[in-house]
Amino acid sequence: MTELRALYPNDRAMLREVGLRDGRQLVKTFPSMATKLEWIKREYTAGVRHCEIGSFLPAPRMPQFADERELIAKVRKLEEAFSSALALNEHGAADVLDTKVDEIVCVVSATEEHSHANTRRSRSAAVELVRKTAAFRDASVHKPVFMAGIAMAFGCSVSEPVAQSAVLQRTEQCLTAGVDVVGVADTAGFAGPNQVAELSRKIQGICGARPYNIHPHDTRGLGLANSSATLDIGARIIDGALGDLGGCPFAPGASGSIVFEDLIFLCETKGIPTGGDGETLTGVRIITKKEMPDKHFY
Amino acid sequence: MTELRALYPNDRAMLREVGLRDGRQLVKTFPSMATKLEWIKREYTAGVRHCEIGSFLPAPRMPQFADERELIAKVRKLEEAFSSALALNEHGAADVLDTKVDEIVCVVSATEEHSHANTRRSRSAAVELVRKTAAFRDASVHKPVFMAGIAMAFGCSVSEPVAQSAVLQRTEQCLTAGVDVVGVADTAGFAGPNQVAELSRKIQGICGARPYNIHPHDTRGLGLANSSATLDIGARIIDGALGDLGGCPFAPGASGSIVFEDLIFLCETKGIPTGGDGETLTGVRIITKKEMPDKHFY
Repeated sequence: MTELRALYPNDRAMLREVGLRDGRQLVKTFPSMATKLEWIKREYTAGVRHCEIGSFLPAPRMPQFADERELIAKVRKLEEAFSSALALNEHGAADVLDTKVDEIVCVVSATEEHSHANTRRSRSAAVELVRKTAAFRDASVHKPVFMAGIAMAFGCSVSEPVAQSAVLQRTEQCLTAGVDVVGVADTAGFAGPNQVAELSRKIQGICGARPYNIHPHDTRGLGLANSSATLDIGARIIDGALGDLGGCPFAPGASGSIVFEDLIFLCETKGIPTGGDGETLTGVRIITKKEMPDKHFY
Repeated sequence: MTELRALYPNDRAMLREVGLRDGRQLVKTFPSMATKLEWIKREYTAGVRHCEIGSFLPAPRMPQFADERELIAKVRKLEEAFSSALALNEHGAADVLDTKVDEIVCVVSATEEHSHANTRRSRSAAVELVRKTAAFRDASVHKPVFMAGIAMAFGCSVSEPVAQSAVLQRTEQCLTAGVDVVGVADTAGFAGPNQVAELSRKIQGICGARPYNIHPHDTRGLGLANSSATLDIGARIIDGALGDLGGCPFAPGASGSIVFEDLIFLCETKGIPTGGDGETLTGVRIITKKEMPDKHFY
């Protein structure tokens, strides 16, 4: 069992490096296993402790994620390092819970349209899946921390504007359904700092002492400005990807995550410890340049 | 004579596009005159009204800036558009003031080391040059607005840490010497949002009703987070370059300016009008990709 406060301690920013998950969603060339292991190892040396390593999806459809068990096992061998994996359906949840992953992540969309496009189910069916997954987690051997991420929380590229109330409602539903941590994702990269500050304040009000997560995207270059705004409110779990990998296959025009190394620099300027070393990490990003040349998709 | 409030109206953010100056400092391939005219024209169509077009420097040393008079004349033909040019020595100041430029910019460094590296003179000699240039400006026919930019205001890559008091002292000296606007430049790209907010507040206190300028760089990806912080304090004149061009030849390791288009998006998320159209501008940036392939220098 992974304790919530072991995964997300109170005394620092806990930055989740999501390059191996978010970054592999959209590329056509996949890094080799040797490269992935090198990636994790060198990140660990540079102080990264939280790696989102992939999604448990059918291998024929997403062959890049066929090696998740091996990556979870690798992270497990590193002291005080944590792995995280996405489950987008019941099969995936069963598969993740069958591993020694430290965190399982489900996704609920803020809008009905993106929910159908991303996972072929309604928002209420997605919340129902969260409830089921919570029950599976409780019955599992290793009982990982359970996060639900709310996609398109700041604006949606496949539907109408997103009402803040819809995001807050989804947050409450997910907490009631049994998740430990709620994440809000700017999947399309439409958010601005004032909007992020306002929503962060409200999410923090709902979550109370529980940590919450912000997952920015950098479509319009505002990901780090948005991170700055949410750090100022008190958010301490923020996602970035090594060298700006990432993107959602069902968010047209959206670009990658924020640059993980720059997120470390940002926290440093605010005097918030991260345990990471941005300078060393800039050396690791050569991996993504070499083996994932098509990472930029717009 | 260009009125200060014509150049910098109170009712919007006045974003200065510095790609033709900052962006041409470090590249080895220079865009053709036809391309530069196209650049200015298309930017104007997208709502850009303030173009920093170059530096008046000896043509043998900086051949890319040999065409400044032609660019100033081009901008002058566009209604309510303004041109700006740098003068780094007395000859340059005389040359700029001999044109119909709307704004002349001098540079004073926050640190003695960068002052010598950048302009081969001490900081006090730089302030003396500002005083002389103010007198030349008063005696000139067209009397442009006069800005002094304080380089390395948030940290210096060629010397010790920068004392905030040194920047504030330089600000007061430049205002006393007769400038209309003081700019503070994060030449090395070391600043963080909290530091920018704090310095902005103090600069604003010194400048009073006079506008002031912030010139961010994006070395560590924090340029837009810093812009967000200074906009929140009340700064309304911010510099960016089309498609992240730019960099100081005497600031080792520093990268380009912030992406001008993203700066427009940032202002939009805050409800601050800019008159610019970010989407249209993303189409203009193809110029920089095509004709300045070596713009990234790190």
